[in-house]
Amino acid sequence: MRVNIALKKSVDSSYDVQIATLEKKVYDTKVAIITNPKVSGLHLSYLLDRIEAKEVYVVTVSDGEEFKNLATVENILSDLFNHRLDRKSLLIAFGGGVIGDMTGFTASIYQRGIDFIQVPTTLLSMVDASVGGKTGINNRYGKNLIGAFYQPKAVYIDSHFLTTLGNREYAAGIAEIIKMAVTFDKDFFTFLEQASLHEKKDVEEAIRRSVEIKANVVVLDEKENGIRAALNYGHTFAHVIENESGYGTLLHGEAVAIGMVMANRLAVLLGLMTEQEEKRVEQLLQKYDLPTNYTILDVAKFYDTFFLDKKSAQGKISFILPKGLGDVEIKDDISSENIKSILEEFGV
Amino acid sequence: MRVNIALKKSVDSSYDVQIATLEKKVYDTKVAIITNPKVSGLHLSYLLDRIEAKEVYVVTVSDGEEFKNLATVENILSDLFNHRLDRKSLLIAFGGGVIGDMTGFTASIYQRGIDFIQVPTTLLSMVDASVGGKTGINNRYGKNLIGAFYQPKAVYIDSHFLTTLGNREYAAGIAEIIKMAVTFDKDFFTFLEQASLHEKKDVEEAIRRSVEIKANVVVLDEKENGIRAALNYGHTFAHVIENESGYGTLLHGEAVAIGMVMANRLAVLLGLMTEQEEKRVEQLLQKYDLPTNYTILDVAKFYDTFFLDKKSAQGKISFILPKGLGDVEIKDDISSENIKSILEEFGV
Repeated sequence: MRVNIALKKSVDSSYDVQIATLEKKVYDTKVAIITNPKVSGLHLSYLLDRIEAKEVYVVTVSDGEEFKNLATVENILSDLFNHRLDRKSLLIAFGGGVIGDMTGFTASIYQRGIDFIQVPTTLLSMVDASVGGKTGINNRYGKNLIGAFYQPKAVYIDSHFLTTLGNREYAAGIAEIIKMAVTFDKDFFTFLEQASLHEKKDVEEAIRRSVEIKANVVVLDEKENGIRAALNYGHTFAHVIENESGYGTLLHGEAVAIGMVMANRLAVLLGLMTEQEEKRVEQLLQKYDLPTNYTILDVAKFYDTFFLDKKSAQGKISFILPKGLGDVEIKDDISSENIKSILEEFGV
Repeated sequence: MRVNIALKKSVDSSYDVQIATLEKKVYDTKVAIITNPKVSGLHLSYLLDRIEAKEVYVVTVSDGEEFKNLATVENILSDLFNHRLDRKSLLIAFGGGVIGDMTGFTASIYQRGIDFIQVPTTLLSMVDASVGGKTGINNRYGKNLIGAFYQPKAVYIDSHFLTTLGNREYAAGIAEIIKMAVTFDKDFFTFLEQASLHEKKDVEEAIRRSVEIKANVVVLDEKENGIRAALNYGHTFAHVIENESGYGTLLHGEAVAIGMVMANRLAVLLGLMTEQEEKRVEQLLQKYDLPTNYTILDVAKFYDTFFLDKKSAQGKISFILPKGLGDVEIKDDISSENIKSILEEFGV
């Protein structure tokens, strides 16, 4: 005997990303804002001025990847239960990627899922973390190993918050924007070469195009089995660099900048990209003071570390390589000789 | 500026519930069986004989609602990480509802979601917990307050496991079957009056019809905003009874049996059900030695406890009342006088 359970398709996974000065929002429910002390100190009143709800709670958690764990999620959950948030309540993620990841994950498991919206405050989280539905926390086995695919109800991007962002953090966000352009959109790349991303108008346009690109990719591949991998351009190298240099030394976006330079070298070697195109990417990175140089102290060790990464579970490494500007190729058959010869170029 | 993110509908939420002797299954992945010591002792070899996989791990967790918590889930997660299960691995929930709930929840958050299948071993979990996608764990604030809606890839129901089930547990499963018939299917109710659910053929047919009914309801209302509430017939009273008598004194199905009797009394008072229909339900419950009597020691306290239940967050109680046999009405406007007069009938 057999009964087929064909669930009706979920119709509520569509949402808007708004890029504008935040307008007043009125909610007929309880709202809990999840934030960190720094964002709270700088911008909480700005947000509170624009939120009207039945009850508003603020849950402040420590900042940083090292606190993106189950213990912090449990603390958030306890607060929500203590404040008696119910299944109709709303969470607002107010901060960078760490806050967004934890809030999204908490929303996904609180009473089997409640609504959340994102108000990202860093450039990186505006262009990257706010689209894709990936929520997650770290544990001692690695990063983002526990989590869920869970979509926000809305994302409100207000460039006001960027005014207080440090230069390095700002540039780290730009690295992800450049990544989008190199992999998917040549016109956008040209725009970035001419634009000045410290101007409100230009940065908002760059955010919009990055979000659009990422949205297109995510819609095609919600659960990350195919082309979404292209968003990892620069990341295969970046993970090893972050691992080597110790988390916190380089910002993620800075490691990605170096990773893109390394991936480009490999792309040139394989004939996928011209040296002139490679140069243009490097110059664009340098325009925003992003690092493009890195010294690998131990090439053999660097090479081995690739295989410890979860993305190479089957013993193969996928490299996401640019194909000229605005296109990308995923290759998992690159010879170890070719990989090593590139790494040697960055060696001591 | 605004970007709409319209995610492609998830196409992989359809699955089969098979009611048959379990056949050999071959998996080209790592498999972890999550079970408890009792089920493991009685039936693990039966299951292992029917599973072929790249690697098979058995994770044994303590039995009972009191262990259905985040600490146990963390233990399971640790085992899965230690065994290096990846995103293509499979979990098998092998046990009753507690194992099913915890395994489903663990699967939903392990590396942002991996596949799981259910092999329920109790009658209750066969008819109830194996359909609906509700996973969850308890915490000090209440039952099932943390969890996710997450569907299994398949459910394999093999009545072989029922041969070792205790009489009371068996009857508790029958209570849920009777609940399905009273609320949704008069013919099924008549079938149950004539059937002998200790016969393999009849119990399999009863499971099939219960699963079908629940599947229809769940498909109409995956996220439990509407008619799925009808499945809570008997449960509004049952929760208070369980709360009063202490969890563990009565089995959940036994409390539901009493709860149905109470709901029926209310339905008769409101003219929704005849006394003759009420009698037929009572006789069917008694045929399987399910309790139909209960003494409320403190009616006022019993009444107040309704409002502590999470389902009455807005200060209203929804009662799911039978409308004759095979139909149901959800009422949230019953006067406190009517409720109290019914409770008085069960008073000392």
